[in-house]
Amino acid sequence: MSSPLRRAAVVGTGLIGGSIGLGLRRVGWHVSGTDRDPSTAGRAVDLGAIDTIGIDEAAEVTFVATPVGAVPAAARGALAQTAGIVTDVGSVKDAIVRAVDSPRFIGGHPMAGSELDGIEGADPDLFEGAVWVLTPTVSTDDAAYSVLQSAVSSLGADVVALPPADHDALVAVVSHVPHLTAAALMQLAEGRATEHQALLRLAAGGFRDMTRIASGHPGIWPDICGENRDAIVGVLDDLVTALGDLREIVATDDRGRLLETLEAARLARQNLPQRALRPAELVEMRVPVPDRPGVLAEVTTLASEIDVNIFDLEIAHSSEGERGVLILVVDAALADEFVHHLHDRGYRPAVEGMS
Amino acid sequence: MSSPLRRAAVVGTGLIGGSIGLGLRRVGWHVSGTDRDPSTAGRAVDLGAIDTIGIDEAAEVTFVATPVGAVPAAARGALAQTAGIVTDVGSVKDAIVRAVDSPRFIGGHPMAGSELDGIEGADPDLFEGAVWVLTPTVSTDDAAYSVLQSAVSSLGADVVALPPADHDALVAVVSHVPHLTAAALMQLAEGRATEHQALLRLAAGGFRDMTRIASGHPGIWPDICGENRDAIVGVLDDLVTALGDLREIVATDDRGRLLETLEAARLARQNLPQRALRPAELVEMRVPVPDRPGVLAEVTTLASEIDVNIFDLEIAHSSEGERGVLILVVDAALADEFVHHLHDRGYRPAVEGMS
Repeated sequence: MSSPLRRAAVVGTGLIGGSIGLGLRRVGWHVSGTDRDPSTAGRAVDLGAIDTIGIDEAAEVTFVATPVGAVPAAARGALAQTAGIVTDVGSVKDAIVRAVDSPRFIGGHPMAGSELDGIEGADPDLFEGAVWVLTPTVSTDDAAYSVLQSAVSSLGADVVALPPADHDALVAVVSHVPHLTAAALMQLAEGRATEHQALLRLAAGGFRDMTRIASGHPGIWPDICGENRDAIVGVLDDLVTALGDLREIVATDDRGRLLETLEAARLARQNLPQRALRPAELVEMRVPVPDRPGVLAEVTTLASEIDVNIFDLEIAHSSEGERGVLILVVDAALADEFVHHLHDRGYRPAVEGMS
Repeated sequence: MSSPLRRAAVVGTGLIGGSIGLGLRRVGWHVSGTDRDPSTAGRAVDLGAIDTIGIDEAAEVTFVATPVGAVPAAARGALAQTAGIVTDVGSVKDAIVRAVDSPRFIGGHPMAGSELDGIEGADPDLFEGAVWVLTPTVSTDDAAYSVLQSAVSSLGADVVALPPADHDALVAVVSHVPHLTAAALMQLAEGRATEHQALLRLAAGGFRDMTRIASGHPGIWPDICGENRDAIVGVLDDLVTALGDLREIVATDDRGRLLETLEAARLARQNLPQRALRPAELVEMRVPVPDRPGVLAEVTTLASEIDVNIFDLEIAHSSEGERGVLILVVDAALADEFVHHLHDRGYRPAVEGMS
């Protein structure tokens, strides 16, 4: 007899929910799912994204993949229907994590998208190589986090743990404001094009690259901008300041500062990290931890802060009763720095090579 | 015996000059060339981008492919060394066209680039499907324009004729300001990344798309920003205004206006023209024209204004002496509108189908 299937559920079988279903089923999970539109849920069954319609009470993990505004209610519903872990995929985290507030709920945000919409665009490879943010907090259940990290990793994504508010501040910079800027550039070009139709024919590769994200469905943005208002407004202010500086540089023909600014931007762009590849040498770190909530959030978000990727994570309970052992697999080259930071926070990790 | 080769020259055998050489040689031209760095010119010979080092006195067309600041002197040199047409490939046109001022000089700007630099990145297909702006003026020699349009078309590019100042105003919108904006976004992200290293790992596809152009060599930008200062400053002001409007929309959570703005940007992005494909039906327009300068500039830039692509262009001298006939090949579907506009300017074109 084969071992019983692991069970997951998906609330909202659109592009992201459908892709999660396809991906989990491929690695052997049984996936149930619902959608507010019954025909979409039916289509998800037809396409093999879910096994059955409904929320399986035995689901170990439920992924809430609804629009941001609908997440809290859907997450609370899933917490009531199952005894398992519940997570979401929304682009804003702090408000959601505060609104749901359960040790079994961990906010999530897979940073992957597609030019396709809805269940028809679902793809089991959508998350391959993508960053998937998880936002554990002091009240997160550590075992729940460990299960979720493993499920998300099995979809091919790299998990980055961040406090919810940090996530929101960072995505305002790398996602929300760039999106609004693409729309502003497109708006400007469209306005000038009414004076001269040839303008849009001159819009070559660079302009097309810069405005590509403006071609997505705008429906998700009112919720995102509403929930992440302060961070977005702050970054927009900084962008306007930076553009004002560039305006002065151009207006005064300050060639030295122009070169300096563009050279710095070029270097920064070239240094954008590629995917965190599995390094040649990994080590296992065993971190004895007190059996209190918040330890896992502290250790994993510390790793993100100093850019250490956790390739695998497990919690073992030691024989000493009140203590457990957190087993982390990390890049050998970065282990010393991580140990140093953990020491500063009072942890006493042991490192051993892996063969 | 085969017919004698057509002869072209290239001043500056970098990425663009080298690509022009490769492309022209592939369609049967003999290409001579120089570079301020003799080893680059030698490399261009090795790579087959030019046949010989030097400027062939018999060159029918010379392409000046130097940095913008060096174009006027190089163009005047080529005009003195040859009796042929001289053009350039700089990203700014008005100042250059004013500075060179010869009926045999026509400004040009191929809107194509590569992530590679220099002669090693040269590619005969670089211009395939790209827009190549030419900027004829009232003093342009019409026969020269016709030869240049044909040479540029043979590289696979679509010619768009624009008055030099219009070119500069339009590229400020679709190229220069987007470039500066990409640098500003990168600068912002880099600044925030010092607070939180994970930020750059969160920079997914959309952010990478938006900042890609910031990874190019900054060396060309001081000249471009210097020569096109007024247009760039004006567009930067408009962009700051547009971002300020978006800031207000976000700060006041004005969901209706946000959706409206993003929906308009999305539509505009989706309507960006694709390459001007050769339409199913072409017609030949024969336009009797007085034998005076500026006619060809007027007719071709009028076509660009109303977004009519000229697929082929020839000048025939009629038996009436003082008059010639301009033969244009255009999309049959747009011929009526073009005829209408030409009538308004006093031309009396005749249209006939092509089989």
